[in-house]
Order: sequence, then C-alpha cells, then structure tokens
Amino acid sequence: MTTPSDTVYASDQEKLAVAIGEALKGLAEGGIPIGAALFDEDGRLLGSGHNQRVQGDNPALHGETAAFLNAGRQKSYRKTTMVTTLSPCWYCSGLVRQFGIGRVVVGDTVNFFGGQDWLAENGTEVTTINDPELITIMGDFIRANPELWNEDIGEE
Amino acid sequence: MTTPSDTVYASDQEKLAVAIGEALKGLAEGGIPIGAALFDEDGRLLGSGHNQRVQGDNPALHGETAAFLNAGRQKSYRKTTMVTTLSPCWYCSGLVRQFGIGRVVVGDTVNFFGGQDWLAENGTEVTTINDPELITIMGDFIRANPELWNEDIGEE
Repeated sequence: MTTPSDTVYASDQEKLAVAIGEALKGLAEGGIPIGAALFDEDGRLLGSGHNQRVQGDNPALHGETAAFLNAGRQKSYRKTTMVTTLSPCWYCSGLVRQFGIGRVVVGDTVNFFGGQDWLAENGTEVTTINDPELITIMGDFIRANPELWNEDIGEE
Repeated sequence: MTTPSDTVYASDQEKLAVAIGEALKGLAEGGIPIGAALFDEDGRLLGSGHNQRVQGDNPALHGETAAFLNAGRQKSYRKTTMVTTLSPCWYCSGLVRQFGIGRVVVGDTVNFFGGQDWLAENGTEVTTINDPELITIMGDFIRANPELWNEDIGEE
C-alpha cells in the first residue's frame, strides 16, 4: 500500500522514479519487475504498486492495476497521470480508458508495446520516456524468464 | 474465493446462473450487483466473483476481474469462457483481449454496453443473452444509486 504524502513529484522523470522503485521492489521479491504510480494534477502520489503475479499469486495485479487499487476509490481520474515502467497491455490500457485517466507516462516501449496508441487515439495524453536503465532491467528479466513473462501477457 | 468443483455447467444459461448468483451475493453485501464466472472448455468453473467497490473498498475488482483473480494463475485462457452479468467495460474487455479469453457470454447489454463489439472484431466469440430478470435487477440498482454506478464506470 501507499503512504499518503504531500511530496510533489514535479517532472515526469521524478514520477517515473517512483514507478521504477516499485518495479525494483517487485524484482527483489522474486516477481516480475513492472511498477506503476498514479499522481494527481499537482504531482502528488495517489498510489503506487507493482506486478503481483509471483509474490502475490495474483494474475489480476499488473503494475497499473496495483497502483490504481492502492490509490483507493476516486470520483474522477480525468486530471490524474498514470506512470508505468512498461507500455500498458490491453488490460491496463482498458483500465486507463474506462476510468478516463488523463495522461499516461511510459518508461519502456522497447520490451513491450501495448495499447498506448489506442489510448492516444481516444484522447489520453501519452508520453514515452524509454529510460535506458529500465529497458535493460526488463529486457534481462524477459530473457531469463520467458515462460513467466508470456504467462503475464497471456501469450502461449 | 471459489471452491474447485467437478460440476459441469453445460449451457450458457447454467453458466450465467453462476454469475447471477455472484451478483446477488454482491447486492446482499450492499455492493454493486455485477458478477462473473470463468469456465474451462468442459464447462467446469475455474473461478467466480463479484464487484468489490463498496464492500471490499476495492475499485480494481469488477465482476470479471474478480472472477479472473479467483481462477488463479492459468497458462492459457484460449478455451475458457467468461460469463458476466453486464456487458464488459473497457477495463474488463481489455482483460479479455490481453489474456485471449476465447468466449464471452453477456447477461445484460441494456443497462450498459462496453467493449464487446471491439472484442468480437478482434476474435473473441461473444454471445448476448439479455436475461429479463437480470436487466431489472441492474436497472433498479442504477436508478437507486446513480453516483455509485457512475463512480464504478469512471463517469463524472
């Protein structure tokens, strides 16, 4: 869960650092290193989380859905920003679209490319960062754990 | 959670009855009455669940995502059927598409129409039942709880 805070994460790079912190926490737990964080319009953290397939035995918690869960019930997501270490899959893209999350910041489109173009076509502001360190972490993980990775994205 | 069972739910109407049972459980708990159930290719129940926004204080568990969670980790969803009491929103449609759930059975498209045409266009087999009793239950709930319903689908 996320501790409420008045800290303002002003830049996209600062926001992405929170998501990367979640990904690294997941890696340390023996899990898939994907993290995400949801921020309000002022850059305050609403909630963050990471993939829970392995450590939580939970196939429904991807980075983005974990951050969304940990942000708790919100009346509006229009002015929020979802920052994720990896391009959102269809499941997480559907989350963004249904709840009208206004903006998505993506840390890595090299190792996976999900529904972010579809989101942009439907009004979400999408920013891609492609952080080299992050790309290395995720790429190494996928190469070392291809079956686990395929399970996480529903590939057989 | 779902108790494993060898019971075979042969027809769509029998499968829908499981999802309706979940929806009614949710209603009895004071929650939003939407339920879903995931079945294997032989009609055996893998997992079922219901919306947990109110009673679980959990915005991430819609009927479909709750059923998906309770089915546990699966290697393949290609031959599974997701039965849901209400047309799947973009979030739940994204779940179906990402994990390649082969078939979706929808109990009610009158009170809400989500991403099911998009799923059909992308290869999911979609069957609509439109059960009159179910439509009444959900319609009554929405009319009595418009704010809660709007929160659940991200409408302001």
